[in-house]
Amino acid sequence: MIDRLLDIVGPKGIVSDPSEMTPYLTDWRGRKQGRAVCVVLPASTDEVAAVMRVAAEEKQPVFPLGGNTGLCYGAVPESDDAEKPGIVLSLRRMHRIRDIDTVSDIITVDAGVILAEIHQAADKIDRQFPLRLGSEGSAQVGGLISTNAGGTAVVRYGPMRDLVAGLEVVLADGRIVNDLAALRKDNTGYMLRQLFIGAEGTLGIITGAALRLFPTLSKSAHAWIDVVSPADAVKLLARFRATAGSFIEAFELVSASQFELVRRHVDRVRMPFAQLPAWSLMVELSTSDSYTDLDAMLGGLLEEGFAAGLVGDAVVAASNQQAKEIWHVRHSVSEANKKEGIGIVHDIAVRTSFVPAFIDAADKVAAERFPEATTQVVCHLGDGNVHYILMFSHDYWNTIDDQDGFALDVERAIHDVGVQFGGTFSAEHGVGRKLPAELERLCDPLRYELMQQIKHVLDPDGRMNPGVLLKSQ
Amino acid sequence: MIDRLLDIVGPKGIVSDPSEMTPYLTDWRGRKQGRAVCVVLPASTDEVAAVMRVAAEEKQPVFPLGGNTGLCYGAVPESDDAEKPGIVLSLRRMHRIRDIDTVSDIITVDAGVILAEIHQAADKIDRQFPLRLGSEGSAQVGGLISTNAGGTAVVRYGPMRDLVAGLEVVLADGRIVNDLAALRKDNTGYMLRQLFIGAEGTLGIITGAALRLFPTLSKSAHAWIDVVSPADAVKLLARFRATAGSFIEAFELVSASQFELVRRHVDRVRMPFAQLPAWSLMVELSTSDSYTDLDAMLGGLLEEGFAAGLVGDAVVAASNQQAKEIWHVRHSVSEANKKEGIGIVHDIAVRTSFVPAFIDAADKVAAERFPEATTQVVCHLGDGNVHYILMFSHDYWNTIDDQDGFALDVERAIHDVGVQFGGTFSAEHGVGRKLPAELERLCDPLRYELMQQIKHVLDPDGRMNPGVLLKSQ
Repeated sequence: MIDRLLDIVGPKGIVSDPSEMTPYLTDWRGRKQGRAVCVVLPASTDEVAAVMRVAAEEKQPVFPLGGNTGLCYGAVPESDDAEKPGIVLSLRRMHRIRDIDTVSDIITVDAGVILAEIHQAADKIDRQFPLRLGSEGSAQVGGLISTNAGGTAVVRYGPMRDLVAGLEVVLADGRIVNDLAALRKDNTGYMLRQLFIGAEGTLGIITGAALRLFPTLSKSAHAWIDVVSPADAVKLLARFRATAGSFIEAFELVSASQFELVRRHVDRVRMPFAQLPAWSLMVELSTSDSYTDLDAMLGGLLEEGFAAGLVGDAVVAASNQQAKEIWHVRHSVSEANKKEGIGIVHDIAVRTSFVPAFIDAADKVAAERFPEATTQVVCHLGDGNVHYILMFSHDYWNTIDDQDGFALDVERAIHDVGVQFGGTFSAEHGVGRKLPAELERLCDPLRYELMQQIKHVLDPDGRMNPGVLLKSQ
Repeated sequence: MIDRLLDIVGPKGIVSDPSEMTPYLTDWRGRKQGRAVCVVLPASTDEVAAVMRVAAEEKQPVFPLGGNTGLCYGAVPESDDAEKPGIVLSLRRMHRIRDIDTVSDIITVDAGVILAEIHQAADKIDRQFPLRLGSEGSAQVGGLISTNAGGTAVVRYGPMRDLVAGLEVVLADGRIVNDLAALRKDNTGYMLRQLFIGAEGTLGIITGAALRLFPTLSKSAHAWIDVVSPADAVKLLARFRATAGSFIEAFELVSASQFELVRRHVDRVRMPFAQLPAWSLMVELSTSDSYTDLDAMLGGLLEEGFAAGLVGDAVVAASNQQAKEIWHVRHSVSEANKKEGIGIVHDIAVRTSFVPAFIDAADKVAAERFPEATTQVVCHLGDGNVHYILMFSHDYWNTIDDQDGFALDVERAIHDVGVQFGGTFSAEHGVGRKLPAELERLCDPLRYELMQQIKHVLDPDGRMNPGVLLKSQ
């Protein structure tokens, strides 16, 4: 098979030396490694199509790889057929920005383009692409779409799903679906495009995308607000939405227990409060126009909040520097937690209205079942997305025999609480190879069956990223 | 079968008397009438499920009917099996607002609820539901979702597709898909919900929906702008987007030939210009906050436009009354055209950047092939959605022998122009029973095949609204 693939992609397009393959087979945190016949790096959509035809004829599974920044092992190749280890398909040689339409505000790109490159290209024409992630220097468009990436700006612009205006997809049999017209309105049948978004590479290979651009933000206002409880935070959110609804760029809720860890482990972090608030709301308002008095808007809303007893204290950034300092604290969470111990992070989403009840119930379950853990809450409140964390000390963790089994027990317990409030166990991280059993356990059986049937239509031989998302059949 | 259905829905839930059935079998313009065994009006989702099970056992097709306001005959029952005329399913007895979540800004409703009732319910809690249509007093939620309804506010809020947060659907075999959790983020598999939106009742019966609410608008600014050409209008749109992007509530482009007809046929219309502009841009900016100077924003953008030579003249509404007068002219288009003659209306969408070229090319085709017609343009410019109209006098029309065939010739000619610019022949009106042949002719064959396969998964016996959207197989 390698010779046939060589004919298509040339020597630059194949990696088959075992030691050179390793980075393509291993997740970025080094926790899981897979195997494959080779790594193929096609340079065009037609080459992808030809590669897919060969894989189909050879009955080999195909494992698409983006920037390898996922958290759920969705890009680690693991065939369930030892005779057919499959090929890893990386599109990193497909990194062309195909077109920028400054009138329609659409950028069309190869799927191998890195997120930061899209930010730069948009910036040059005085537009922005509003998906912002810690991994933007590595994450590729194809992976971001396949995992329906989220982040802090979802509250305003929606997840990746809402930012995709068109797709180009190569199917398992090598046929190419061209859907890059990027029309704002089109009522000519079923919305197939949305099936591929968030499908984690199990339905086809995304090779190109048309993405929506937005006006550049010209000013912003930032506050760190002391609130007593998640319930008060939700009430404040409702007030912000009513008058500042279309200006909310970020609305993050963080527990004192979380910022305590940041203070402990991260240098050069400035905390503007003498005592850490029980709950911190970090808010950004922003706009592209010059006719809105954002400072007055934020000030007015905070005053209302004080008057209603919802705001204990608040620090408003008086300069860009202060705004950066506020958000630096928020963005230091991962670093702090890595130093503190073993954190089991959950990715629950419930309706915003249920966030306080979910946190209460999760706290009870954590205290009863896992008293050795401390708990931290980092919440994209505007989306009802709660990263509920149970943190175990290294000392305690090392006493556990079956660490994987223990972690699964923790996860199941918190997932159950989420589901109890009508929520999901995977808001933005996806399912990957980490959570297919949870998906099967918690998903409505009818929905699961329909997903299997859709999968069968697009990938009848089950060769597209097998074992990811849905259990292999 | 009627007895079995009576057992489920009771006597109030069945109409089988031929004369009483007529309004359920006829499109609202009275142009097309179908036939059916009976009309069934279930009062709950469980009743819908039971009805669907009976229809499955009896092998009868099912024709869902919403508020009967469609333009493409999608709700006219026409079985292709004379032995099995099928049943019409109306959900108008399911008109309950199930829940309003004022924190998460979600309203959950039965599919039979009328759009105007949702507007009222939202208004009561100081929110808005931003889908606005001429037919809002009759159109039902289920139909609006099944046809992915549009309107003038799509430029800001997107079409119905973007406003749906959750669905409840009864499948062809009577199984119920409950997807009403209405989470803003959920990455647990394929986005099945989006398949049913815009499927025109061919994949299942939408029985309930969770819809997104938005802040009430507190102020707005309106202008009627004289522009020389669609090209200048597009340039002006780009400027508006860059600074006022998130405030654009409407951005409509209308040709002088169209407003000439309004002036001729509609009483009590005030035209603020001595001479009708060659092209009229009608713009609304609006916001929910009280910290934005919308008048200054609009004034500033118009001044920029003057300075750049893009704006000939402009009338800014100085009062609510004047704003109403401006929009009254826009909304009088249908009435004027009905009086003028036989208008063949197209529903093309192209990327905004291609709108001027599309109009030019359509004008050439119209002048060459249909010199007897005048042409009018009514365009939701922000979405690239052009209602391009060829207007024939009654006198001329009556000389045509095969009027249906002639109309089809006109439509095909203009559709071809749209497709030539990467566009669609149905932006917001849908396919229905009017355009399945055009869909088959113009759709990418691979996409068409995938749609047939998806249809087969969800409706293996082809009993759901057969003949609508896809040709019967």
